[in-house]
Amino acid sequence: MRLFSEAKPIGLSPGTLLHVGRQKTERGSLSFIDYNPTQHQTAQDISLDKCRELKNSDSVSWINFSGLHDIEQVNAIGQVFGLHALVLEDILNTSHQPKCEEFDDYILMIFKLIHLDAETGQLDQEQISMAVGPNWLITFQEKPDDIFERLRDRISRASGKIRNRGTDYLAYAILDSVVDSYFHVLSKIGEELESLEESLLLNPERNALHEIHRYKQELMMLRRAIWPLQMAISEFRQLEEPLLTEGTAIFLRDLQDHITHAVESLEMMRDSSANLLDLYISLSSQKMNETMKVLTIMASLFIPLTFIAGIYGMNFETMPELKWAWGYPMIWALMISVTVGMLWYFKRKKWF
Amino acid sequence: MRLFSEAKPIGLSPGTLLHVGRQKTERGSLSFIDYNPTQHQTAQDISLDKCRELKNSDSVSWINFSGLHDIEQVNAIGQVFGLHALVLEDILNTSHQPKCEEFDDYILMIFKLIHLDAETGQLDQEQISMAVGPNWLITFQEKPDDIFERLRDRISRASGKIRNRGTDYLAYAILDSVVDSYFHVLSKIGEELESLEESLLLNPERNALHEIHRYKQELMMLRRAIWPLQMAISEFRQLEEPLLTEGTAIFLRDLQDHITHAVESLEMMRDSSANLLDLYISLSSQKMNETMKVLTIMASLFIPLTFIAGIYGMNFETMPELKWAWGYPMIWALMISVTVGMLWYFKRKKWF
Amino acid sequence: MRLFSEAKPIGLSPGTLLHVGRQKTERGSLSFIDYNPTQHQTAQDISLDKCRELKNSDSVSWINFSGLHDIEQVNAIGQVFGLHALVLEDILNTSHQPKCEEFDDYILMIFKLIHLDAETGQLDQEQISMAVGPNWLITFQEKPDDIFERLRDRISRASGKIRNRGTDYLAYAILDSVVDSYFHVLSKIGEELESLEESLLLNPERNALHEIHRYKQELMMLRRAIWPLQMAISEFRQLEEPLLTEGTAIFLRDLQDHITHAVESLEMMRDSSANLLDLYISLSSQKMNETMKVLTIMASLFIPLTFIAGIYGMNFETMPELKWAWGYPMIWALMISVTVGMLWYFKRKKWF
Amino acid sequence: MRLFSEAKPIGLSPGTLLHVGRQKTERGSLSFIDYNPTQHQTAQDISLDKCRELKNSDSVSWINFSGLHDIEQVNAIGQVFGLHALVLEDILNTSHQPKCEEFDDYILMIFKLIHLDAETGQLDQEQISMAVGPNWLITFQEKPDDIFERLRDRISRASGKIRNRGTDYLAYAILDSVVDSYFHVLSKIGEELESLEESLLLNPERNALHEIHRYKQELMMLRRAIWPLQMAISEFRQLEEPLLTEGTAIFLRDLQDHITHAVESLEMMRDSSANLLDLYISLSSQKMNETMKVLTIMASLFIPLTFIAGIYGMNFETMPELKWAWGYPMIWALMISVTVGMLWYFKRKKWF
Amino acid sequence: MRLFSEAKPIGLSPGTLLHVGRQKTERGSLSFIDYNPTQHQTAQDISLDKCRELKNSDSVSWINFSGLHDIEQVNAIGQVFGLHALVLEDILNTSHQPKCEEFDDYILMIFKLIHLDAETGQLDQEQISMAVGPNWLITFQEKPDDIFERLRDRISRASGKIRNRGTDYLAYAILDSVVDSYFHVLSKIGEELESLEESLLLNPERNALHEIHRYKQELMMLRRAIWPLQMAISEFRQLEEPLLTEGTAIFLRDLQDHITHAVESLEMMRDSSANLLDLYISLSSQKMNETMKVLTIMASLFIPLTFIAGIYGMNFETMPELKWAWGYPMIWALMISVTVGMLWYFKRKKWF
Repeated sequence: MRLFSEAKPIGLSPGTLLHVGRQKTERGSLSFIDYNPTQHQTAQDISLDKCRELKNSDSVSWINFSGLHDIEQVNAIGQVFGLHALVLEDILNTSHQPKCEEFDDYILMIFKLIHLDAETGQLDQEQISMAVGPNWLITFQEKPDDIFERLRDRISRASGKIRNRGTDYLAYAILDSVVDSYFHVLSKIGEELESLEESLLLNPERNALHEIHRYKQELMMLRRAIWPLQMAISEFRQLEEPLLTEGTAIFLRDLQDHITHAVESLEMMRDSSANLLDLYISLSSQKMNETMKVLTIMASLFIPLTFIAGIYGMNFETMPELKWAWGYPMIWALMISVTVGMLWYFKRKKWF
Repeated sequence: MRLFSEAKPIGLSPGTLLHVGRQKTERGSLSFIDYNPTQHQTAQDISLDKCRELKNSDSVSWINFSGLHDIEQVNAIGQVFGLHALVLEDILNTSHQPKCEEFDDYILMIFKLIHLDAETGQLDQEQISMAVGPNWLITFQEKPDDIFERLRDRISRASGKIRNRGTDYLAYAILDSVVDSYFHVLSKIGEELESLEESLLLNPERNALHEIHRYKQELMMLRRAIWPLQMAISEFRQLEEPLLTEGTAIFLRDLQDHITHAVESLEMMRDSSANLLDLYISLSSQKMNETMKVLTIMASLFIPLTFIAGIYGMNFETMPELKWAWGYPMIWALMISVTVGMLWYFKRKKWF
Repeated sequence: MRLFSEAKPIGLSPGTLLHVGRQKTERGSLSFIDYNPTQHQTAQDISLDKCRELKNSDSVSWINFSGLHDIEQVNAIGQVFGLHALVLEDILNTSHQPKCEEFDDYILMIFKLIHLDAETGQLDQEQISMAVGPNWLITFQEKPDDIFERLRDRISRASGKIRNRGTDYLAYAILDSVVDSYFHVLSKIGEELESLEESLLLNPERNALHEIHRYKQELMMLRRAIWPLQMAISEFRQLEEPLLTEGTAIFLRDLQDHITHAVESLEMMRDSSANLLDLYISLSSQKMNETMKVLTIMASLFIPLTFIAGIYGMNFETMPELKWAWGYPMIWALMISVTVGMLWYFKRKKWF
Repeated sequence: MRLFSEAKPIGLSPGTLLHVGRQKTERGSLSFIDYNPTQHQTAQDISLDKCRELKNSDSVSWINFSGLHDIEQVNAIGQVFGLHALVLEDILNTSHQPKCEEFDDYILMIFKLIHLDAETGQLDQEQISMAVGPNWLITFQEKPDDIFERLRDRISRASGKIRNRGTDYLAYAILDSVVDSYFHVLSKIGEELESLEESLLLNPERNALHEIHRYKQELMMLRRAIWPLQMAISEFRQLEEPLLTEGTAIFLRDLQDHITHAVESLEMMRDSSANLLDLYISLSSQKMNETMKVLTIMASLFIPLTFIAGIYGMNFETMPELKWAWGYPMIWALMISVTVGMLWYFKRKKWF
Repeated sequence: MRLFSEAKPIGLSPGTLLHVGRQKTERGSLSFIDYNPTQHQTAQDISLDKCRELKNSDSVSWINFSGLHDIEQVNAIGQVFGLHALVLEDILNTSHQPKCEEFDDYILMIFKLIHLDAETGQLDQEQISMAVGPNWLITFQEKPDDIFERLRDRISRASGKIRNRGTDYLAYAILDSVVDSYFHVLSKIGEELESLEESLLLNPERNALHEIHRYKQELMMLRRAIWPLQMAISEFRQLEEPLLTEGTAIFLRDLQDHITHAVESLEMMRDSSANLLDLYISLSSQKMNETMKVLTIMASLFIPLTFIAGIYGMNFETMPELKWAWGYPMIWALMISVTVGMLWYFKRKKWF
């Protein structure tokens, strides 16, 4: 996971199309789902002509393109739907921050999809751009992804209310899926933070530094995706007819509620991971204290004794004690009383 | 106590009813209390038909449902009182954050009940949702609870002013009980923080790290319940007739005062617990200093002496000192003066 | 000094009168001072009837009640002056935060009196509530206090401008005395912080931890009294005729200036005490470094020497060195050169 | 340098004149400079009558009084120019914070002059109050100062544009000098911070704690002078004719620019000194690590060797090794291999 | 790289021209590029007369002056284009902060060019001032620089849209290049921070303190350039016709987007470097713990053994153990069991 973005060459003409990011799929792929209250159709790998046709039809068309490295294809799609060159530039820059921008006849939203990579256990980030027109909606993804699978299912089944509504509701539904996915990631990190805390409190010897550091970095990365999206959704809500119909307002209020919740959870986790680091450092300094005490006790007990033994290892010709019959037992008595005195002193200091 | 919320599956249709949280009671239970200035009635385990009847009566009806895991029942009640599907979704999601939302003919408030579990001594959190209509008020609880017992008593006794007022005053009275309960928890934590501080200052050896950490986490959790409720109450105050009658305004101002007070107490406790951690760490480093000094004094006193003794333990054939008559006493004199010198040095360094 | 507030029972009817706090005086006592430009009168232990009379007279009457534990008396006074039940509830709750609240025909202000207890040297806090009507002003105190003595003197002497003005100016004069008293406390703490800093810098061995912690707690407590009063005074300034007359505005601007100054001094002292803690911790770690160095120098000097002595204390039958005539002097030469080498090494490391 | 302010007695009548601060000059001294586009005059130690005359003349008069301890003189000047009693009280309180206050026919500005005392190398602070009327401007200083010397020169020389403009431009010019002087102090501290940082990085042994602490305190003191002045200048800019003429607006914009720059430099230096403390603490803990390693290496090398030597210093009758011909060399071989093993271990741990 | 700015002499007349900064090029040099949709011309080292001519022509003229130390030349150019004396003062003060200021017929923008010096690897900062008039734009640089080379190329090639637009678009294009250059620097620092973190986690022994400190200082310096520019661009966007034409608005929105992105990246890197310092300190304290453990283990193992050996090195006449046939082996047995006991104790403490 790259935290920081790459830079483009300096002084390019604005609107110069340039893919910033890694190529994540082999080839660009264009698919769509088109529906109205009574029927729906869907297809993979369609042509640009089909796009043009979909744009002009009355039914709601959701076109999806995956594979941002294919600059020409993106440009061609942009031409069909009349997207501004600056918009296409933003779409191709996968390190762009989330935002909502209003144009004359469409809206551009950019946001991040974040999910835990099952294999590496690390966070993976993908940028999705969404242009919402009167009866068409295009999404640009870095690679084909199955996060919207369930949403497409809902459209296919005539059951949900989605079939009766326009592109603004579809945009809402897409954003809702994305925000839901944030909760998944947050909930996973939350669980891990809690179990890390628990294990740290039970076993203070545990070396948790790397983990805490990783969570802090991950939360920082999530923050960078979620905070600006909150702002973007708030701007989205303030749009007016015809881009936004009245019936969708209540759903957007709910969505904003959700993202606010996500932001607060995120902030709380950041606090929590900071607390955890404090805890780790304090525990670690406690361990050091422990070690120091063991050393001090050992040294303080034996160094004086060794000295006493050293005294009577001296080879002076006249050392009267050495001749005494009770000399040896008396030395033992002296050494034992020194030891007891030391132990009493440490006891009083509550060192053990 | 779970700090972080669980996540729902991604891509569900909005308004899909799903219970997020643990089942806390065996079965759902529906009860009510209905009153006007002259009379009141109350019953347990009533039917939905009774609800419908209560909705249409002129007197004020407070219906309470406990047992959020019973999705169907919640849905049925929602149908009776015309609650929006998104509202029911929020009610069932027990990790929802506190909020106040206005609808055409009712208000939804969500808040957290927090109390100390007498057994475990830990904070326990329950979500309560409250829908306030013109002459009905429904509360949804996770489990039957006795926090509102005293309030129901006040309604039963014809004495209080509550019997002469509408659902907005009842909603105020419920929120007031909840805010009062926050003060109980805060006051308890405040007392414990103060006694912890006192005991830490008296006995710096005390290991208070786990406790401080626990208070920090508890305060973080309380913060998550109280801050958004402050906002929600502020929104509640800004509602207009007929949902909010003029006579209730002064009570709501008082309520806002209280929750602001709670927020400030909370923030002060957070500061206080941060101070406590600083104090703990400083005391702990002081203890380490003490230990180091004991070690250094012991080692510095005896290592040179042991060396001197070692010298005269050597077995060289020609060591003139060993033959001297006063050799042994002179060595003692040397060792005593080294010791005195050391002690004087440590004294000057103010080490004891 | 209690930092955190006590809690009331949950679910009481709003306006239920309950004294929250300690009883600080034996019995409630009601006194007054009544004045107009030409004359004034004053008396202790007056009756409620006298209050009623004062309320209806044209001259300015300042009634003072001390002894908040006497709930009935407080209630009776409230009845006389038409104070709302919620107002009386707030007056009796001595852990209420400072505030300014406007009612139809009077204003309620609550604030804290803070002074240093001469005996214990600790901060003492008392809550004062002030209701300001058109030509009467009542103050409620926890115990009789002499902070307003000088103010009453000014009223008695016909000299000051206070005799020519109404209750709004009297309220200003009372608040001004209170804010002045904050400056006294702040100035005292400021002096102590500075002398603590000085003594810490001169004598790094000084154990200042408890003191720094105490100042932090005291400043936190002052903050809780001063910040909300700043807000309250700002609201007071925004009141309109007839509660606030035009001539008083300039004095209130000055008062706001003062409290803002107090707030800034407070914040600077908080910064300063945080700096002091940083300094203490750094000095303490410096001392530890010193101790470590002494230990390391002692051990590094003597442990090798002791080893050398140990070598020649061995009892092997064939140790040629022991037989050499110059063996003993050579060993001394070896030991002296080891010592010199060590000392040179430590010198280069700048350890002494 | 006193950081915190002194307090006045409690309960004084507002407008009571009282000098708060130290007396910094022997006697009060009143001087002026009066000018119009064509001529100017200046004099020292003028009388109050002259002041009265200057007030009524058409030319611009800048009267300066130094020596705030002379309360009567200040009061007399106040009477001449019709300054409010509260204004005079503020002028005499040398621990007042910077502010801008508008009155009916004049403006009051209070600000701090800060300069490095050449002798002590410490910051010295002086309060200056400035009342700006239609064609007169009075400054009150604690002691005669030469900071405005260059400004008076500019007035004397007919060259600058100052002679063609009114008191608002003069006020601007005075404030500009003061802000310039802040830059001098900031630039000095900035240089010292940079050289301190450099010397710390080159020579980590350097004890820089006192210095860092002093810079933090100095910056805190500067902050207290500069932040409120920024606000005051912003209020000054919002004044209207006739107190502020249109032509001065562009200069005030420039002044605000400067003070904003000063504020940002200040904040950056605060950050920088915090970074420096972090660096110092980290370096100090690094040194401790170093010391610990030396101790550990010495002890770990020699303690086992001393033990081995101790073994063969025992006096048991039957210790076969002592009789072996190769006993002594073998012991040396053992000890050398232990030493080599230890060194290899420390090498692997990268301890040297 | 100087972090803090230099100060000018106090009390200078506003508008006094004074070069604040180092001379970075040998001599001032004036060049231009002039274009309209159909043609363009460019020249080096032109005269002031040419400037006057360019000012009055209808085509867009971009005049560039490098070499701010040449005050007279700057002043002369200022006269030609009617720049205010205060503007020229700001242009010459190379430690001025970025800003946007509107004048009657031109706009002044000041900003910083930041690039990594290829040789020293340090950040280098240059101030650029830009005055934008109706059909002329002047930039003042400290030294000739090639950052705008690509931009001039775009103008030369008739291809881009820049030839069809006015000075507002040219100003946008210049700012865009500058913001792009920030991304380059940020991206470089971001990469280095990430590789530093990685190396720190792999090899905790690595001394990364100086590097972390340097990044913190560099980011602080970047912050000082980028934050105010964000504000300045926001003010630039709010300008009105004729200084800003409608068609440029969408590009400025894009530019603001970019700079906001830069600010967020910057803040994240600051967070990240703070995290890194935390990590470094924690790792460093971990190493200390390690060292302490080695010392404690060594000392605790051998000190008791040495004591035992010392006992039997004493020379008492009657020490029965010394006579025992199995004395020596028994002592070995004792010493081995003490060692095993110690090892078991350390094992249980999880010290290795």
